[in-house]
Amino acid sequence: MKEIKIGILGFGTVGAGVVEGIQKNGALMAERTGIVPVVAKIADLDIETDRGISVGEGVLTTDAMSVITDDGIDLIVELVGGTSIARTFTLEALKRGKPVITANKALLADHGEEIYKTARENNTGIYYEASVGGGIPILRSQRAGLIGNRIESIYGILNGTCNYILTRMEREGLPFDEILADAQALGYAETPPDLDIDGIDTAHKAVVLASMAYGAPVPMEACPTKGIRGLAASEIRNTEELGYRIKLLAIIKENHGEVELSVEPALVPKTHMIASVSDSFNAVFVKGDIVDDTMYYGRGAGRLPTGSAVIGDIMEAASDKLNGKGVPVSVTMMLQKSELDYCAPGSIEKRCYIRLCLEDKPGSMAKVMNIFGAHNISIASVVQKELHESGCAPVVILTQKAKESEFVAAIAEIDALDVSTCTPIRMRLEDFE
Amino acid sequence: MKEIKIGILGFGTVGAGVVEGIQKNGALMAERTGIVPVVAKIADLDIETDRGISVGEGVLTTDAMSVITDDGIDLIVELVGGTSIARTFTLEALKRGKPVITANKALLADHGEEIYKTARENNTGIYYEASVGGGIPILRSQRAGLIGNRIESIYGILNGTCNYILTRMEREGLPFDEILADAQALGYAETPPDLDIDGIDTAHKAVVLASMAYGAPVPMEACPTKGIRGLAASEIRNTEELGYRIKLLAIIKENHGEVELSVEPALVPKTHMIASVSDSFNAVFVKGDIVDDTMYYGRGAGRLPTGSAVIGDIMEAASDKLNGKGVPVSVTMMLQKSELDYCAPGSIEKRCYIRLCLEDKPGSMAKVMNIFGAHNISIASVVQKELHESGCAPVVILTQKAKESEFVAAIAEIDALDVSTCTPIRMRLEDFE
Repeated sequence: MKEIKIGILGFGTVGAGVVEGIQKNGALMAERTGIVPVVAKIADLDIETDRGISVGEGVLTTDAMSVITDDGIDLIVELVGGTSIARTFTLEALKRGKPVITANKALLADHGEEIYKTARENNTGIYYEASVGGGIPILRSQRAGLIGNRIESIYGILNGTCNYILTRMEREGLPFDEILADAQALGYAETPPDLDIDGIDTAHKAVVLASMAYGAPVPMEACPTKGIRGLAASEIRNTEELGYRIKLLAIIKENHGEVELSVEPALVPKTHMIASVSDSFNAVFVKGDIVDDTMYYGRGAGRLPTGSAVIGDIMEAASDKLNGKGVPVSVTMMLQKSELDYCAPGSIEKRCYIRLCLEDKPGSMAKVMNIFGAHNISIASVVQKELHESGCAPVVILTQKAKESEFVAAIAEIDALDVSTCTPIRMRLEDFE
Repeated sequence: MKEIKIGILGFGTVGAGVVEGIQKNGALMAERTGIVPVVAKIADLDIETDRGISVGEGVLTTDAMSVITDDGIDLIVELVGGTSIARTFTLEALKRGKPVITANKALLADHGEEIYKTARENNTGIYYEASVGGGIPILRSQRAGLIGNRIESIYGILNGTCNYILTRMEREGLPFDEILADAQALGYAETPPDLDIDGIDTAHKAVVLASMAYGAPVPMEACPTKGIRGLAASEIRNTEELGYRIKLLAIIKENHGEVELSVEPALVPKTHMIASVSDSFNAVFVKGDIVDDTMYYGRGAGRLPTGSAVIGDIMEAASDKLNGKGVPVSVTMMLQKSELDYCAPGSIEKRCYIRLCLEDKPGSMAKVMNIFGAHNISIASVVQKELHESGCAPVVILTQKAKESEFVAAIAEIDALDVSTCTPIRMRLEDFE
């Protein structure tokens, strides 16, 4: 049995979950691996609040740097959050050759390249399973189980708050704002909710996934991001009737050496596995060129699930350190190339859901169809709903695959028609084919 | 970059998939990990048949032992199948300190303890991701991502042939024999199909999962096994109407230190993720005490998916070997204890689906209900179907949780009733609560 001394920076929700997990199952982990995890130091500015966990005397400190510089500490767990002081702590630890475990997706999205390179230069590792998909071992699956695969595509439901809101909107038929307010009251959504519902949190995770899939740090600017704010209950109903569900998806693909990347609400067929992911659960659907379709599902957030992922990384970092492994695959995979080529957004081919409001006049629909035709957009199905009391007829269209630039142009032209009485709504339809 | 020289024993379906995968993505793997996988030797009794893959001169040999004893070979991939010669080859390689990668669940189920111990004695590893769930990185998730978790339960759909048959029976309403014959014609089921449809293959995988979850080799005798042979189309219809699907499940749980283990067809609610796993796909649902629910989904068989898992193990074994890691967690986790305690089958509490045929006489149902009551079995729902032309009325019952021993006794008493006109059918109902 060998001991590993852990220094934890940040004793918030996840920090407390990690400590609780190690207290509960540390002996089991030691039996399984031969390594005894010891929480030697915990740094937090607030060491007074009761987290419901008792820790030994002298373990708590307000001085994070003293933990980083302590030669008795083997590895550092960064859970302070944010991208400023967390960056400083992470880099300081790595420069001392200490492995760092983090759950901080924003940190990796904003400063990943610097961090991976610092780890490499100092012959150590950064481990970040908990940064994507909470307790789901998705990054580990990508960098170990699927290491022999060229990744063809990844579809991720990566934000529990958004999935919770979408699930309830679908089940209860209530408006976005009402469900959001309730989710906030229940603690399923933060106040303000922007990072979640505007898709930023999903985008942070998407760039980490894409970086690992294609071998270079991906900047946030490479990920066009749309959230679910203000999604109409009628859109949920319309898509439901057509056999689809709306999910906030991270979409990552490679076509002819170019990476396609986005975060957006998208229609997925109800029969697809990913459509069954409900409530606050997360899932990542990965297609590899050797393994074909795989999916990973679990809780994307929460004290213990995220703690579980951090603990998995602690034990791996401990094993790597004790075996003198040096730079792990979680670093080398991110630095295969200096940068990636990206698809021009306008060139991406996709199917779309389009909802228009048209005046109830002869020729309205013909004008619209002429515009689609002129832009090489084929129609897969059209449903014109009963006349609304406002006097306009909602029209729901599913298209075949066409170029994004053509969709943009067509929608602008339709919007300018005098018979179009509201701004058209457009969402991607992903049929996984 | 470091090279690792691989010796493959068995150039059948999976062997060819491994070689194809390495030829296709070997350079990518090297970029990702810094390790270059080189297929140095392939042994098979048949080195004449064209596998559609070109290999270098001198790579093919009919002498497997010469590959094992070759000092230039770093690790051995055992893909000969069966439990006799595969055992010999595996032990020989381990005794020489060479890591062995295998996809052979029968070998592990029958000789796992001997193999894990031989690996440990010789300070090397056995890696067997491909033995359970084909391309799904389920064992790796258990032994790495979820290493901090006590496993509360595992539910696995682990046999693609059975899942394919059940999916088609449900969709097409056809009898078991007809779908089986078609599956055989299409290559989805083997001839004879016994290992698959009688649940043996699933049981092999279940004991490997259980061994890893609870830390000791599990003998096949500890896994009561029922397959899907002869399942009636009417059972599929009945369960469907009640909101359930039938899946062949491996069920693994721990209650108060006792392991519960079985393979059996079971009803699962249609709304549960695992019910969405259709066709020949596999999935494993794992509940950990820290991470809560997780699920892993993908192709459970096939040349390339299984090859993907073997390749993942090759790269891990290579890294371990190059870093002098010695005995990996895939070995230590299986040998924490010498044996496990198992629940007495009769003591297991479960819900059940029961289908009876009763004569259409006053008091028939009362007799049945009296028996259930006497055995402390509460009824959750009863549906009596229209009288069958044979003059008997099919009765479909879902129970609450009760003891297996009570079910056995109650069914025997009901079967002996003069009003019971056919042998009662009973299946487990698993509601994951």
